[in-house]
Amino acid sequence: MIYITRKENFNAAHKLSRTDWSLEKNQEVFGKCANPNWHGHNYQLFVTVKGEVNPETGFLVDLKWLKQVINANVVDKLDHQNLNLDVDFMKGKLASTENLAIAIWDILNPIIVAEGVQLHSIKVYETENNFVEYLG
Amino acid sequence: MIYITRKENFNAAHKLSRTDWSLEKNQEVFGKCANPNWHGHNYQLFVTVKGEVNPETGFLVDLKWLKQVINANVVDKLDHQNLNLDVDFMKGKLASTENLAIAIWDILNPIIVAEGVQLHSIKVYETENNFVEYLG
Amino acid sequence: MIYITRKENFNAAHKLSRTDWSLEKNQEVFGKCANPNWHGHNYQLFVTVKGEVNPETGFLVDLKWLKQVINANVVDKLDHQNLNLDVDFMKGKLASTENLAIAIWDILNPIIVAEGVQLHSIKVYETENNFVEYLG
Amino acid sequence: MIYITRKENFNAAHKLSRTDWSLEKNQEVFGKCANPNWHGHNYQLFVTVKGEVNPETGFLVDLKWLKQVINANVVDKLDHQNLNLDVDFMKGKLASTENLAIAIWDILNPIIVAEGVQLHSIKVYETENNFVEYLG
Amino acid sequence: MIYITRKENFNAAHKLSRTDWSLEKNQEVFGKCANPNWHGHNYQLFVTVKGEVNPETGFLVDLKWLKQVINANVVDKLDHQNLNLDVDFMKGKLASTENLAIAIWDILNPIIVAEGVQLHSIKVYETENNFVEYLG
Amino acid sequence: MIYITRKENFNAAHKLSRTDWSLEKNQEVFGKCANPNWHGHNYQLFVTVKGEVNPETGFLVDLKWLKQVINANVVDKLDHQNLNLDVDFMKGKLASTENLAIAIWDILNPIIVAEGVQLHSIKVYETENNFVEYLG
Repeated sequence: MIYITRKENFNAAHKLSRTDWSLEKNQEVFGKCANPNWHGHNYQLFVTVKGEVNPETGFLVDLKWLKQVINANVVDKLDHQNLNLDVDFMKGKLASTENLAIAIWDILNPIIVAEGVQLHSIKVYETENNFVEYLG
Repeated sequence: MIYITRKENFNAAHKLSRTDWSLEKNQEVFGKCANPNWHGHNYQLFVTVKGEVNPETGFLVDLKWLKQVINANVVDKLDHQNLNLDVDFMKGKLASTENLAIAIWDILNPIIVAEGVQLHSIKVYETENNFVEYLG
Repeated sequence: MIYITRKENFNAAHKLSRTDWSLEKNQEVFGKCANPNWHGHNYQLFVTVKGEVNPETGFLVDLKWLKQVINANVVDKLDHQNLNLDVDFMKGKLASTENLAIAIWDILNPIIVAEGVQLHSIKVYETENNFVEYLG
Repeated sequence: MIYITRKENFNAAHKLSRTDWSLEKNQEVFGKCANPNWHGHNYQLFVTVKGEVNPETGFLVDLKWLKQVINANVVDKLDHQNLNLDVDFMKGKLASTENLAIAIWDILNPIIVAEGVQLHSIKVYETENNFVEYLG
Repeated sequence: MIYITRKENFNAAHKLSRTDWSLEKNQEVFGKCANPNWHGHNYQLFVTVKGEVNPETGFLVDLKWLKQVINANVVDKLDHQNLNLDVDFMKGKLASTENLAIAIWDILNPIIVAEGVQLHSIKVYETENNFVEYLG
Repeated sequence: MIYITRKENFNAAHKLSRTDWSLEKNQEVFGKCANPNWHGHNYQLFVTVKGEVNPETGFLVDLKWLKQVINANVVDKLDHQNLNLDVDFMKGKLASTENLAIAIWDILNPIIVAEGVQLHSIKVYETENNFVEYLG
């Protein structure tokens, strides 16, 4: 069993805010992350897959393929977008890093399984000091 | 002559967009940076001051003081805010990294000069791949 | 199950030295890390907690709370201190990164468990080339 | 159970290419990584060992010893070399990061076990965006 | 006067070796960098341009344009190539970081000047510990 | 004119404290940096030299030589030492990063000039957020 990781980046706006709560309640719970006019981050996304090395290629998985899959299905929908307003797979969810990691897992897992390898981990850095990992 | 630098961070939303241009014109000129619902960055700010070492303290300038000045006058007004909507010193300006660096210089320069040292440089990283430096 | 990590920093002095050994014996075992007048590091501390996402907030745990807990109970006692002389929870222990990680676990674990989540890992970087992880 | 990691670096040339395939076939499968005149990387190697802390020293393992073992057995054979042509333990293998991580595990594991600790992980970064981890 | 920098990366093979010197002489002068079967690096390239901010766009220069210019004229010719064998603008030159930085300046300078801004600096990192800057 | 930089690291203890001031006065001026039992840092040192490229070697200066000069004359005297107690060239000086950068310049400048190149800059990082540059 070997693990290979591909890192991609995206820059997005978001806020932590429930539409069924008042601004005061949102700011009490989420602090400055609830500021009404949005803020944003340079997110870093680490996708780790696992499986056996293919003896024909020496690869677990072709990283060019993995990069294309991540970009077409996830990064292109997130980059330079608003996580709360623009992203179909975040609709109706709080735009927390936790929910983002889980949503990315749900998108990538069937595609990666169909390639004959396993998705091991989705890791999302909101800042260098705060990051989330989801193992499914 | 010695140079000392303090680094601070802020996370903010912005877009590159002129209010007197159509969305199409803005996207033609600014690309995805003009997306209407904002995006954002983990900005890094490097403030460099220069002067002579004070023989009594071995300091060019007290970094605790410099940190407070940067935070009270700049970072607290930018962090978790929208550069286009929330920041008084960016009102009426395109929210480019260039304009941001110049605006930060204009705020900090008189405060630092009044302390008896000189402001040498304001450097703003929008991403690790794109950054601006302004020397006044 | 999801994992969230908060990174904090502290700058401290230490040496690797047993008080019941001679200087020669300490330097034979610990090399330059036993130099008598101390040396120091910019330590990085990564605290990872795990559990279920709270559907009300989209959070596993409030990172503002986690940051305060780490700082009040650990970082404020370590930062700009001497690990051998000044830190109550390191008294009588060799000031190795291993012992430091275990001691930090023992402090944070009951506080984090009382919040209804689990402590997964304490990771301490002494330098970018040397780091320790403790899983309890 | 505690984990300690030592990071080392090496700079090497390689290409992804099977000698029993044509250049066209190699470039179809491996893309620009099959370019005939080689390319290269600043590789980063993270070796993680695990076990119990020795109460006499506060160490899991002496990092000076671990550094010497990694350098003498692995890094000195890879640094400023060609992975396909110069490295005995890569002979006859595709010079992928996966195969490199497995080969390094096979070299270091018996040496580390003989010291009374366990090898937990070999992690090899080809670039900051692509890395492999092998757990044996 | 404002300065804006774009960072790009390329992975290449090279060796330090004069064809009119023996292997022994090359290894005496260049050490392991003269090893005959090449080695390689993850190079980082920082291109800094300077000039006045365009009031219409808030830009010194369009970074999308600058990125395309750097990639089409420099990075695409270096990435996954051998600096000694494959790169037209390094033919007949020692493949040192110094010569590489100067050659990149000579390519980019007329293109950037023709755009109405000035090239300020070409900075090339061979490793994180060794880098060269050329100011023309 | 070209500039080449070599980075080296050292880990040291220090405090900011004048022996002719009381502890109270030192803590009033220097804050937690005056804590009596020392603290420490992973310092990073960047030495930049400038001059003309030697056409015979493609080098401004041999980086192996520069590394040896920095280590023998500076790093070996600072690494795993106490800046206030153990370092001859810091005796009688406040152990600030400013004074450290100036002292390193004064040691390296005559050696580098004797080699036929010029010392351009000494840059010392105390933390990633605080650094000093001295140009002589």
